[in-house]
Formats: sequence, C-alpha cells, structure tokens
Amino acid sequence: MATTTPALVLDLIRTAGPVSRVELAQRAGLTAATITNIVRDLLAGGLVRETGRRPGAIGSPRRLLELAADAWYAVGVQLSRSTTTTVVTDFTGRQLAGTRSPGVGDGPPQVTLTALAAHVEHLLTATAVPRERVLGLGLVTHGPQDRERGMVLTSQPTRAWQRFPLTTTLAGLLALPVLLENDATAAAVGEQWTGSLDVDTFGVVWVGGGIGGGVVLGAESFGGPTANPVEIGHVPLDPAGAVCGCGNRGCAEVTAGPAAVVARAMADRRVRTRLRLSGRLDDTLSDFEKLVVASGQGDGAAADLLRASAERLADAVVTLMNLFDLDTVVLSGPALVTAGPLYAEAATRAAERGALARLLRPVRVLVSPDAGTAAAVGGALVVLRSPLVHAEPVVAARQKVLPMNT
Amino acid sequence: MATTTPALVLDLIRTAGPVSRVELAQRAGLTAATITNIVRDLLAGGLVRETGRRPGAIGSPRRLLELAADAWYAVGVQLSRSTTTTVVTDFTGRQLAGTRSPGVGDGPPQVTLTALAAHVEHLLTATAVPRERVLGLGLVTHGPQDRERGMVLTSQPTRAWQRFPLTTTLAGLLALPVLLENDATAAAVGEQWTGSLDVDTFGVVWVGGGIGGGVVLGAESFGGPTANPVEIGHVPLDPAGAVCGCGNRGCAEVTAGPAAVVARAMADRRVRTRLRLSGRLDDTLSDFEKLVVASGQGDGAAADLLRASAERLADAVVTLMNLFDLDTVVLSGPALVTAGPLYAEAATRAAERGALARLLRPVRVLVSPDAGTAAAVGGALVVLRSPLVHAEPVVAARQKVLPMNT
Repeated sequence: MATTTPALVLDLIRTAGPVSRVELAQRAGLTAATITNIVRDLLAGGLVRETGRRPGAIGSPRRLLELAADAWYAVGVQLSRSTTTTVVTDFTGRQLAGTRSPGVGDGPPQVTLTALAAHVEHLLTATAVPRERVLGLGLVTHGPQDRERGMVLTSQPTRAWQRFPLTTTLAGLLALPVLLENDATAAAVGEQWTGSLDVDTFGVVWVGGGIGGGVVLGAESFGGPTANPVEIGHVPLDPAGAVCGCGNRGCAEVTAGPAAVVARAMADRRVRTRLRLSGRLDDTLSDFEKLVVASGQGDGAAADLLRASAERLADAVVTLMNLFDLDTVVLSGPALVTAGPLYAEAATRAAERGALARLLRPVRVLVSPDAGTAAAVGGALVVLRSPLVHAEPVVAARQKVLPMNT
Repeated sequence: MATTTPALVLDLIRTAGPVSRVELAQRAGLTAATITNIVRDLLAGGLVRETGRRPGAIGSPRRLLELAADAWYAVGVQLSRSTTTTVVTDFTGRQLAGTRSPGVGDGPPQVTLTALAAHVEHLLTATAVPRERVLGLGLVTHGPQDRERGMVLTSQPTRAWQRFPLTTTLAGLLALPVLLENDATAAAVGEQWTGSLDVDTFGVVWVGGGIGGGVVLGAESFGGPTANPVEIGHVPLDPAGAVCGCGNRGCAEVTAGPAAVVARAMADRRVRTRLRLSGRLDDTLSDFEKLVVASGQGDGAAADLLRASAERLADAVVTLMNLFDLDTVVLSGPALVTAGPLYAEAATRAAERGALARLLRPVRVLVSPDAGTAAAVGGALVVLRSPLVHAEPVVAARQKVLPMNT
C-alpha cells in the first residue's frame, strides 16, 4: 500500500505518541512547516488531539499530540476453516473486545457471512461503541486473494468460497466498508502496531489452519506486484512429501501445517484414541492443541509428530530469511499460542545454521505475544490506516446506505 | 538502490530513446519544466545528446534525445570458481568487447585479481576506448556480500576469499572505481537493460558454478535490508539432500547446481569415462556442458542426472514466484547457455502446477538470450547507472590517482 504523508504522520503518532511536532518532523524527515500544516488538518478532522506539554530544551514547552482514540473504531475478523477471531479496536489499535468462535468448517459463504454479521452486530452492541464511528471491517483470510474484488482465489475451505464476493456481501449485511487482507500480512501489521517488536524490518510466519507469510520492510508491508506475496505455506520443501491443493509437492502446509500433523495423528489409532482427537476439519486447531499439550506431558508419539512439523516449518523460516534478507522472523497465528516456543526453538536452530544473515548480524525467531489475535487486530488496523479515515463524515454516508438494509 | 530523478530520466532514455522531452515527462510522471531542467543538466554534462526531430501532433517537431554512447564506458567482470566473463560496454550498455576465461579455481585472491587487472587492461587497449572515459568496473560475484566494504562473506571459492578486500584491491590495481554486485542481481539488471524482456517485474534464477537469484519490481532491483536478498540457491528444498556450505540441507545449490550434477556423474565410473569428465573444480561448467550435450544425444544416465537437477531448480523457481508474487522468471547464467531450454521446460511445468500467480494471470519461465554474459553486462550497467556518472570530470580525478601506479 502506498503511504501518503498524512498517513505516515498518523502512523508515527500511533507508535511514538504522545509526541511533539518537532519530534514528528525529525522522525518523518519533513519540514516544520509541512508538519504544522498536516497536524492542523488532522486536528481539524478530529483524528489527533493535543495532550499536555513537555518542556523543550529551548523556548516554550512543546505541545504533545496523540491519536484521538475515539475518533474511529474498527472491526477485525480473522476467518478460517477451523477458527474465527473477532476483535473491536479503537483508533489506536487497542483491542476493546474480542471473541474466538468456531471456524467456517464446510459452511457455505452466504450462511457463514450472515452468521458472522450477526456476531459482529452483537459484539458492537456489547462494546457500546457509537455505530457511526465504526469505520469499517477488516476481513482476514488465507491467500491468494483478489484484494480489489474482495475474493479468495482458491477453493479453500470449499469450492463455494472460490471467487465468492466476500467483501461486498459482508459490506451489504453490515452497512460498513469491508477490506480484505491476507492473514499473515494482517498478522505482520498487528505485530508491528501493537508494539511488541523493537525492529521495523521482519518476517512473519503465520500458522492457523494453514500457513501464511508476511514481510515488513522499514515499517511497510511488502505488497508484491499483485498483493499476493510471501506465500510461505506454499513453497516446495520436500520432494517426498504429499501433494497440496496449491499444486506443489511437499509444501510447508502439507508437511508442517496443523491439519497435516492432526491427519498423521489420526492415522495412528492408539494416538487418536489416547488423545481423544475428533479429526473433524473445523476442529483442527483444538486437535492440534491436544497434541501440543500431550507432547509437553511426555507423549512420545505426539512429540515426534510435532518435531517433524517444526523442522519443516524451520526450513520455511530459513527460506523467508534468505530470500528477503531478514534477521528477524516472528511466529504467529492461533496454532502457535501454545506450540510457539517448540516451533521457535527448531526455527532458531535452523536459522543459526542456515540463514545467511547470520554472517552479518544475529538472527532471531520470536513467538508473537499475541499469536491468537494479531491477525484480527491487524485486520482492524488495515481499516484504520486506510484512506477511509479521511473520508466524508460517516454519518452522511451511513444515511445513504442504511435504507438498503431497513 | 534509491533512484534519483536524473538517474530515472537517464534510465528512461536508455530504454526508450530516441525519445522527446514530452514523452519523457509522460513516462516519468514529471512536469515539463522539471524534465527541461534535468535534460539541460544532462546535455551540459555530455551524458545525453539531441538526435534529429520527430513531427509532433501539434506545433513544431519535437527534438529527440538519446544517451551519448561515448560519454562513458564501463567494464563488467563476472567472476566465479569455474569461469570469468569480462565485457566492456559503452554508456548505453552495448557490449563492445567480451571474453570468457577460466575461473578462479583455488587461486588466492591477490594473484587472481592481479591477473584479472592485466586482462582488463589488455581488453581496454584492444577496444581502444579512451581510458579517461572508463567510468569504473562492476565486479560480480556470488553472495552474500558486504557491498560497502567490497567483500564476499562466505569462504567460497576458498577461505582466503572470505572478507578479502576485493574492490579496494582491484581499484588500486586498475586506478578505477570498482563496485561489487551480486551475480543474480547483476544478471537481472543485464536482462532488464538489454531489452530482451517485455515486462519490468520479474525474477531471475542465475546458474553458474553456484545458483543465485534476483528480483526486479517495477524496474527496480529488490535490494533487501542489507543488499543480500534472493539467495534462492540457499533455501532448503530436500530434507534428504546433502548439507551445503551455507549450512542448509538440500538447498538448491547442492541438489540442482552444476557442481552437484557433475559430482554425481563423476561418482559413476562409466559415465565419467564415457563423457571424459575432468572433475576439476575449475572445470565444472565444461564438465556440465558435456553432460548437457550427451543428454541431448540420448545418453540416459546424463539425462537422468539433468532431469533430477531441473526438477529441484523448478522447485526453486516456484518458491521465488510464490514469495515475491511473480509471474515471470528468467533463467540465466553461463551454465544455462545450452541447458536453458531443458531447465525452462521443467520449471514451466512446475510453475503451471504450483505457482499461485497462475490463478490470476499466465506464468512464464524464459531462458535469457544472453545467459552467458548478462551478469557481466549487468555489472557494467551497475557502474553506468551509479551516481559516478555525475562525478567531477574523470580526467582530473585520474590525474590524482595515476602517480600512484606509474
């Protein structure tokens, strides 16, 4: 996404605030006059407010700026076969409410989106945010996507989802703008703006039902020519592996993904029975969680399955580092809330052995502190960082839209 | 590399010339006044000249601009264990002379660079370009590199090369500025500016003694945070593969690279004898060539070895496409002058099956028409596109330097 100067300034205030105009000018590399003009517009638009003063080295104390947290709110929804995470955030990206609910399973898109819209309405009512201040909804799914048309391009979770008009349908149901984003890119945005990282250049490997990737270079998401980059779940890692729906043999998703690990566990009757795995497609993450817990309690079979998966995911981490010239990768996603440290350990070993960046600087594989919600929060932030924040007052826009739904 | 506006205009004239100021303004997205100013400076600096007129739709005929081919010359040297390619180009990037000579082998860097400097001096004399108009030399080697210090970071071809000051040594020997570039990135630059491609977004997989990668996005090389990206030769592709010097198991270089193919052929006494392979490290590319020729003549063992190599390289091509969101990859490098079509066929099959871009648009794997020289020409172009072209007149600079060497 191309960042405009006012958007850059908003981002700086989001991460660095409360901050003075002088500091903003320094950090943005802009003149004081430019910052003054931009800040005046942001104050007038109610996006930013002044908050106290800080003594300056010379002259009068500097007035400090921060985002107006109640200027806008947004909804973020991370949707997959096995889990749905929904959050409501304020303009700063702070999570006001969040739920985790069952995934799409084999449900058809129209039914799923209708239920989702009802759930979002319920959550918005529960959090009591002013409805006219809800800027939009960021819908986060697996890639590849046609971002502009708001569609996923593959037949996951079922064929009915392929090229189904997700964003226009959901926008119609909720009378809200809906933007589509890739799960791993959203997670990268979430990691970046929730302040858990000390660097602005890093990769993300996101493990939910599937596996995705994101790369942030100098605080900007790597977008790729058609907004479908970093499909780290679908690079071939093992010529002896299974064929994936993506067309490749032995890609990360079929060798390391939670669904593959659970399928292997299900194939062993003793493991399946001992750990009470359901094997249902919309239960993948809870079955996977059972394996992780059992492994931690000394179950050898579960430990072996996870170790094999972690080694292939480690290969994917090294691939990401060596192609994008990265020294830091964050592991995120709902599958890694508990399993994160186990996977990070294997990936750290692999990176210290095979990531070429190690020749110049230390390499790190970290586990996201918000592995379960980073993608959904990132979805909300995609909306809050979009040009929508500068649009005409939403009350007027809503009046145009509402009659269609009443 | 960050591109300045005059550099952008020079690039546009290099690819689109002869071209009018009006067309330049349109293509660059700049105002007529800005173009007029920049072109005036470029004309004054002797980098651009006017060449005839083309009738415009309205008003007086438009004067056309082209690069002053004799404004500057540059040397490009692609150096590897198994082969050295040296070219001299004019300012447009047109190759005036070129040689292919034996590679580094196990030679120590000081000896190799001294011989290389003598070879370059000889070539410059033979082409009779005015020495004071030689802008510099682009030295192209495998990565990863410390570009600023002009060093390679790994112990290839031998330990003595690791962190040896290549550019400063060669610059001292030749009294010329020397810039270091990655082989695959240089090849990408070469592909781009020699006009063989109809797109400005593509990947390059470069196969010489080793395997490298480059990505060009909207006519800009993807540089990565520390200028060492796209190490496609060193991503793990096979957990059952051999361990590479890079630290990874089963990376592209040890599963698909020419040295690995030749080593496998050498292990079979009958193949070794039948094809008269030398097995010497500095003969890798000619041994590889013998295998390619034999395969074309129906040698089953050679064909099997090459097929296995081509399938792993195809995996690397898909990896590149799926991480950088590409639909076009060019295969280049001295190993692919003859073998290109065989490798492109396997990679095309793999891309049509597993490159996710295929869901949105056709995917292509092409063989470079200049596979043997693209990296060396790219090295020269890296110099010719550098800020050096705007430096003080080189005659004065040379007078300062020459006494050191006379």
